Amino acid sequence: MVGEFEFIEKVRRTFADIGDGAIEGIGDDCAVIPVGNGESVVVTADLLTEGIHFVRDTITPEQLGAKSLAVNLSDVAAMGVRPFATLLSIALPKECNGDWADRFIGGYKALSAQYGVALIGGDTTSSESGITINVTALGRGSDTCIKRRSSAVSGDVIAVTGELGISARGLADVLSGRVTTAAAQSHLMPQPRVDEGVWLGTRSEVHSMMDLSDGLASDLPHILEMSGVGARIETANIPAPYSLREAVCGGEDYELLFTASPAGFDNLKHVYKSLFGKDLFEIGRITSDGGLQWFSEGVRIQPDWKGYSHF
Amino acid sequence: MVGEFEFIEKVRRTFADIGDGAIEGIGDDCAVIPVGNGESVVVTADLLTEGIHFVRDTITPEQLGAKSLAVNLSDVAAMGVRPFATLLSIALPKECNGDWADRFIGGYKALSAQYGVALIGGDTTSSESGITINVTALGRGSDTCIKRRSSAVSGDVIAVTGELGISARGLADVLSGRVTTAAAQSHLMPQPRVDEGVWLGTRSEVHSMMDLSDGLASDLPHILEMSGVGARIETANIPAPYSLREAVCGGEDYELLFTASPAGFDNLKHVYKSLFGKDLFEIGRITSDGGLQWFSEGVRIQPDWKGYSHF
Repeated sequence: MVGEFEFIEKVRRTFADIGDGAIEGIGDDCAVIPVGNGESVVVTADLLTEGIHFVRDTITPEQLGAKSLAVNLSDVAAMGVRPFATLLSIALPKECNGDWADRFIGGYKALSAQYGVALIGGDTTSSESGITINVTALGRGSDTCIKRRSSAVSGDVIAVTGELGISARGLADVLSGRVTTAAAQSHLMPQPRVDEGVWLGTRSEVHSMMDLSDGLASDLPHILEMSGVGARIETANIPAPYSLREAVCGGEDYELLFTASPAGFDNLKHVYKSLFGKDLFEIGRITSDGGLQWFSEGVRIQPDWKGYSHF
Repeated sequence: MVGEFEFIEKVRRTFADIGDGAIEGIGDDCAVIPVGNGESVVVTADLLTEGIHFVRDTITPEQLGAKSLAVNLSDVAAMGVRPFATLLSIALPKECNGDWADRFIGGYKALSAQYGVALIGGDTTSSESGITINVTALGRGSDTCIKRRSSAVSGDVIAVTGELGISARGLADVLSGRVTTAAAQSHLMPQPRVDEGVWLGTRSEVHSMMDLSDGLASDLPHILEMSGVGARIETANIPAPYSLREAVCGGEDYELLFTASPAGFDNLKHVYKSLFGKDLFEIGRITSDGGLQWFSEGVRIQPDWKGYSHF
């Protein structure tokens, strides 16, 4: 089977000659559409299908509604801009009409209201099989705030906004029937780093950014490839409350991964702490080449780590 | 079961208090996002699910790819603006990887290239059940060109851009195994009226517009409700190559339905014919009230016509 990234890359190449070239499309967390006056609209879409992304019996309708939105708000925030609107398309089996649908919308609305994000369209249809949800999210901001995967610079600090591997542990808990653990709750109700991403967008020290949806081992290579750089990661510095493997390979943490000028990083960290009451974690440095290298207390290691794949 | 319109209306009300009110959301073919300098971005999303919107064995992958895009380009054109980009989300069962997916993308690309519409994002995932497709389409144009459902004026001519009921007949043909009839081909490969919609957008005589996706009997009431007007339709003037019932109740014709100043209509029709080589069909008039009234050769009739519903 062709993997998701191979398929997307093939599609990207197939469509490369259509359009005027002003829009940055496939390859970042969002496409970027310049709208004039130094501003851009960014847009992203994520599809969740029953049995692949979630199991109906292990997530409440409210949680699924909030999570469907959260993963998209995270993509917008990872560009450094504020989400302002979404479109929700949902295919529902007959048994999900009524109460289930109302509770799903309730969860979606609660998170929408938290960030002032309007629902401006979408589609609804019946389904002869499982639940499928597609959310399209739109953000808008100054061109100077937009952070791309392609802008990492050799020497940059590599940092993350929070602990990693919690969602992976939570997924294991959920699959074992332990849906009330803290990790399970993080997995079922991820918190998108919206305000954090928007603020990091305003900081010129921050060069590149993305959100961690597939795991550090899978996501960081996108920044490296698109920026034409390498990285050294010190695993001892990865905030891993559970196992290191879960922190590196686990998906769906929805923390932000970014690179920033080393000269400005201490100040950035200080101001971030004062604003958000939590730490930024420095986990490594961007190098001019050499690919992605892992270290443990300064000693090079060569683990067989792969990211998380839904596909 | 709660119908699609009731569910959408409930969702619209639920979210009415979120956002700054600058964006026009649910209720038109697209949401309208003002971006400054007298321009807006419009956006729409449509979800197609196997077994509800299509039967895999009766439509080729190329046709399904093109149709998934066509219905969204039609929504953008119905606002009077030109589509410039789409996002494609697709959930595919394992047996659709490889050849089927390549052919689907081929059909999607051919229609994208015809109108210069870029593919700028989306998502792809496996599915444990059927195929589900969500397309989000974006358009952009001058605020002065945007046509809404809410702008019909008493006395307006009501017109359509082409023959109605062909897709309904084509669906019947397809379900009977006759996939090569002209009607079946129209059903399987609808042609969005992109250039026509964009041109009608530039004409100040045109007051309101939408596309015919659910059938005249179902779609026209949206213009009437949102504009606070009524309508008299002369059924003898409806271009119905098959039955009148199919023309009025059949869905998926994707012709444009619009209202225009009666003073300017003859000239509009003349210029349209010279530009597009085909006719505009006047089928009735907007009235100040009285709801939707049907006439046959001037005699009031009260048929039990309902629109087409996928839901």
